Amino acid sequence: MIDFSKIKVPTLLLNETIARSNLRKMAAKAAKQSIRFRPHFKTHQSAAIADWFRGFGVEAITVSSVRMAQYFARNGWKDILIAFPVNLRELADIDNLAGDIRLGLLVESVESAKHLEKFLNHQVDVWIKIDTGLHRAGIWHEDTHLIFELASYIHIANHLNFKGLLTHAGQTYDAKSPEEIVQLYKQSNIDMNQLRTKLTTFGIDKILISVGDTPGCWLSDDLGQVDEIRPGNLLFFDAMMLELGVCQPGEIAVAVACPVVAKHPREKEVIIYGGAVHLSKERIAGGQGPIFGYVAFQRKNGWRFSSKNNYVRSLSQEHGVVRLTKKDFSAAEPGDLIMVLPVHSCLAVNTLGEYLTLDGKWIETFRTHEPINR
Amino acid sequence: MIDFSKIKVPTLLLNETIARSNLRKMAAKAAKQSIRFRPHFKTHQSAAIADWFRGFGVEAITVSSVRMAQYFARNGWKDILIAFPVNLRELADIDNLAGDIRLGLLVESVESAKHLEKFLNHQVDVWIKIDTGLHRAGIWHEDTHLIFELASYIHIANHLNFKGLLTHAGQTYDAKSPEEIVQLYKQSNIDMNQLRTKLTTFGIDKILISVGDTPGCWLSDDLGQVDEIRPGNLLFFDAMMLELGVCQPGEIAVAVACPVVAKHPREKEVIIYGGAVHLSKERIAGGQGPIFGYVAFQRKNGWRFSSKNNYVRSLSQEHGVVRLTKKDFSAAEPGDLIMVLPVHSCLAVNTLGEYLTLDGKWIETFRTHEPINR
Repeated sequence: MIDFSKIKVPTLLLNETIARSNLRKMAAKAAKQSIRFRPHFKTHQSAAIADWFRGFGVEAITVSSVRMAQYFARNGWKDILIAFPVNLRELADIDNLAGDIRLGLLVESVESAKHLEKFLNHQVDVWIKIDTGLHRAGIWHEDTHLIFELASYIHIANHLNFKGLLTHAGQTYDAKSPEEIVQLYKQSNIDMNQLRTKLTTFGIDKILISVGDTPGCWLSDDLGQVDEIRPGNLLFFDAMMLELGVCQPGEIAVAVACPVVAKHPREKEVIIYGGAVHLSKERIAGGQGPIFGYVAFQRKNGWRFSSKNNYVRSLSQEHGVVRLTKKDFSAAEPGDLIMVLPVHSCLAVNTLGEYLTLDGKWIETFRTHEPINR
Repeated sequence: MIDFSKIKVPTLLLNETIARSNLRKMAAKAAKQSIRFRPHFKTHQSAAIADWFRGFGVEAITVSSVRMAQYFARNGWKDILIAFPVNLRELADIDNLAGDIRLGLLVESVESAKHLEKFLNHQVDVWIKIDTGLHRAGIWHEDTHLIFELASYIHIANHLNFKGLLTHAGQTYDAKSPEEIVQLYKQSNIDMNQLRTKLTTFGIDKILISVGDTPGCWLSDDLGQVDEIRPGNLLFFDAMMLELGVCQPGEIAVAVACPVVAKHPREKEVIIYGGAVHLSKERIAGGQGPIFGYVAFQRKNGWRFSSKNNYVRSLSQEHGVVRLTKKDFSAAEPGDLIMVLPVHSCLAVNTLGEYLTLDGKWIETFRTHEPINR
């Protein structure tokens, strides 16, 4: 049982029951539709939490860096996709890793594929990164000629196993409603399938499709004609997902417990120990300015979301300024804890580096002990 | 000598010559005006860098957390101010620390001061936190009655040594010009001195004034009628300070070396390995959307600022999207390094956790090896 009186500094709380329930729902939906669930582990970054996934039949995972892949490989994972454009400065590490496990990589240019082929001694799985509307990374899905050229090269290369087409339809994060999210997810899948059909007519066969965003995968009853989904955030959700209408308050599995250090009656604001170095500066656009987290209050064994009228209005390096309703302001006192539902749970995990569960157990991540860089 | 070819992942580069030059200028200005320079060490967070300050006569420092105070105390610093409203959940750690060193604390309510007095076994220095316009923390400078009540209580308390009035005039970060920064700094000091005069007439004597923001302290030739300044950021500066007109590009002492991983000709954008977990999501409001860093290019032994037309337009967890001019886009290739001048150097130091100097030395911070929390 957690002992809240022992919390001295901003601490990442984890409600394991909620997280496991979220995980169960997603895994069940994928299984029912015979789609591989290759969850993104950048959300939790923890070998201990990774073990929960095995119970749901998960054997293949997604990570966002070579170092994270090394960490999970050391912890027994044998099929890891690094969902990040291949970094030519890490080819030696990539090659070593590919000698130990089944390693998947993303490419989006023939040049990068040629570098891989030239440098690697081990086989790697290769996906072509496709942009279906996020405009962050990948080849635009209508650039069929370039995609065909790249797929053809991968096919003839000795060290590259062509897997298929991969996208992250993160444009769902800009949607105005849950309905629009479902529509964007569906459209992205249509675009991916049209591309697959075209490439097939050009003679490329056995093309898998991998897609990945939590909003689309969580809200869509029909996951579509895809072979693999890679959502990660659904494990914990966060204030961003609440704002988008993807999750309910009771589905958010993490909160940052922050000590109240001062009260300002004039503004109905309290100052918390909990700043950018704990919550990250990820924000939601609010009506009266940015929002850096929503407020929940301590309950016997956890927290309870209060209302969107209670929110973090600004963050400095270590301070947060929390605006509260009159009633909630009256009840808050220095020394209390305020539970902040972070805007982006993955980033809060990354900055805080470890969890305290509601059972009172500490759970480590790959950032808890190791040097941060190198 | 730094070997850029060995940089594989986002790496915080430090130009020690620039940093020492910035430090020298600030220390000299304070010394000339007989004002104590109590630098804020939350910027560099490093015992090795802290040693540079001793050469400029610095003996008293500022930090932003109890844990940071413990770290610098272990590294030989004997006079440390924790410039953060006192956290009642850390009183045992505070008391232990106060047994070892001269420890300064901030209070902004009689209740917190009473908690300190009741709990502590050791003496602490106490400053009253005053708000002169930032509206983050502190008592509004015109609330003379409350400030007097608090000062009077501190005076009679056995474990609290009343030091004076402290402010952080961070409203300078919202200024529209360097002239306005100087004006805001001056006005804050006028307000602080008026408050001191009033309290003196009420019978409170020996009131020191401590002020702290880098923009005001750096740009003002006359530091004003203050006893102590606490700027920290000037050691490194950053894109925010460049944007405010506080520093010149050649005065920025840190840059994050980020590998280029992809090119997108249509948008004249490159994708870098360098995201929110490296640079933080601190932003500057740009004309065409937020800016998450300015771009510098690699030079023989360091970097050179390019132009404000080259900037980071978005950051995901590990990716950055960099918009470049046509000419600079043509020259950039996957495998190259792009040097990002971070928006807020203190946060980039915190996320990256260690420095690589242009001499090729690694410098650690208090986050390099220790568990992140607890």
